[in-house]
Amino acid sequence: MERLLRGDVRALARAITLVEEGSARVPAMLRAVYQRTGRAYVIGITGSPGAGKSSLVNVLIDHYRLAGKRVGVIAVDPSSAFSGGAILGDRIRMQRHFLDRKVFIRSMANRGHVGGLAEATHDAVDLMDAAGYEIILLETVGVGQDEVEVVDGADTVCVILVPGMGDDIQSLKAGIMEIAHVFVLNKSDRPGVDRLQAEVEQMLGLRDWQDAWCPPLVRTVATGAEGIEELCARIADHRAMGVGGDAVSRRRRELSRTRFMTLLANRVLAEVVRRVGPARVNEAVEAIAARRRDPYTAAAEVAAEAGVGDS
Amino acid sequence: MERLLRGDVRALARAITLVEEGSARVPAMLRAVYQRTGRAYVIGITGSPGAGKSSLVNVLIDHYRLAGKRVGVIAVDPSSAFSGGAILGDRIRMQRHFLDRKVFIRSMANRGHVGGLAEATHDAVDLMDAAGYEIILLETVGVGQDEVEVVDGADTVCVILVPGMGDDIQSLKAGIMEIAHVFVLNKSDRPGVDRLQAEVEQMLGLRDWQDAWCPPLVRTVATGAEGIEELCARIADHRAMGVGGDAVSRRRRELSRTRFMTLLANRVLAEVVRRVGPARVNEAVEAIAARRRDPYTAAAEVAAEAGVGDS
Repeated sequence: MERLLRGDVRALARAITLVEEGSARVPAMLRAVYQRTGRAYVIGITGSPGAGKSSLVNVLIDHYRLAGKRVGVIAVDPSSAFSGGAILGDRIRMQRHFLDRKVFIRSMANRGHVGGLAEATHDAVDLMDAAGYEIILLETVGVGQDEVEVVDGADTVCVILVPGMGDDIQSLKAGIMEIAHVFVLNKSDRPGVDRLQAEVEQMLGLRDWQDAWCPPLVRTVATGAEGIEELCARIADHRAMGVGGDAVSRRRRELSRTRFMTLLANRVLAEVVRRVGPARVNEAVEAIAARRRDPYTAAAEVAAEAGVGDS
Repeated sequence: MERLLRGDVRALARAITLVEEGSARVPAMLRAVYQRTGRAYVIGITGSPGAGKSSLVNVLIDHYRLAGKRVGVIAVDPSSAFSGGAILGDRIRMQRHFLDRKVFIRSMANRGHVGGLAEATHDAVDLMDAAGYEIILLETVGVGQDEVEVVDGADTVCVILVPGMGDDIQSLKAGIMEIAHVFVLNKSDRPGVDRLQAEVEQMLGLRDWQDAWCPPLVRTVATGAEGIEELCARIADHRAMGVGGDAVSRRRRELSRTRFMTLLANRVLAEVVRRVGPARVNEAVEAIAARRRDPYTAAAEVAAEAGVGDS
């Protein structure tokens, strides 16, 4: 991992591929770099397809590069035989940064990491962080629950909305609306932007924010780079009240807890299966499918046989 | 549970509430009814907000009631402070069946079940099944990953599309498209239905189906109940090649495996945490957040201390 820690792009790309594939070498890789992580600032970018996320990521790259930062981008896509094209399209659109060696762009799909896509993404963020990227943009392709979990691991989450989505905001974006730190009203030169802003503000007004961070709204036109300075200022505001000082931020502690519990659960489950053997697992599954045993009883029995019983 | 097994509606409603809340009484409830389950046929209904899912569920209820079946409906909504209204709206729309005692309609949110919304929904399906409902319609409110997992537990999954969604199908519906057994082109009196059908067929053409079930497309106008007979015929076709005969279907075995592994993982994780104590867990989380320990090493250490180590 020394080459990765020196910022070698090929070493980083290979390491992320191993993470994506769920290689057995991942734990040792993470162990080798982990103490060099925690320096990058991670910005999540999510929103519906067509909201202009890729254009926005492009202008954010420009902004942070002008500020002298090394910028990493992870475009996250839940595994799907049907969606291979979208990611490729994003990468093509981002190709104007392709020759800039201080910009590293990478897509991630769910290819077998034991902790799922979220855990794989967190590992990839750590690797980029260790390789010296100071700003990491975590972009989701869609707005599924998996992707909400992924961007929820970012330090600042930007949710991109566009005028004309109308009544769907309330139902489609459940979950997404709640994790936003900044709302970006993109394509704000379109009609309907005032109504969209009023809808979001009304929704935010339902909650009592007290001392909590109430997400600001920023209007942008990403293709024309309008509003980007203000967006970056709001991200900086959120950053200023979070990470920094002596305290590790609450968000990073929550992310650490989630990662730990996910890895612990996967590890002990694998050990229990190893102890009782795959045949015993199949027998339990068969009994459940045939309605001879309910799933709770079957799980209790197998846990006890593996020496992890209680009840 | 005797009243529930006799079909008592109030007992069923109370039991599902306990499931939703993740009550400690759930395992005993499931144990008591499980051998009386496996008779209901579960039909999943999913698609974007505005696709007409509730109208479709209404006419499906009519259809199966006319066929003399008792019908249960579960409307699934991932927990969200913002989406309480949608479910209420669905229930109001379904109120024409409100006085029919052979129709049981229930919404489910994520309120604390240890296995999450999917496991809670499977448990609720079992309870309805045990109470004598022969057809269970599992309707999702949105199209998040959570909801994909929920309907993926159904015997037949219907994905509802509407004309005019255009290019978004490919990116937004990743995951959803793959679990469909029947595609419903609803609101098919609208312009664009031919294009929609062509897009879906093109997508399906990318895969080699061989002997597998290739999802048929059915055009419907749910508000006018057009196409519903054909839809039910296609559902019956899919049912005929799945559940039935001596063999427990592959899908039900897969669902049994998922439920078993989820409950087993939750159970052994809880036992490991009990053994090492919450203070040790907090210590591990703190070390990860402060970058003194990587999450893989921390998980391995805690698993070993709980007597579930390996490696």
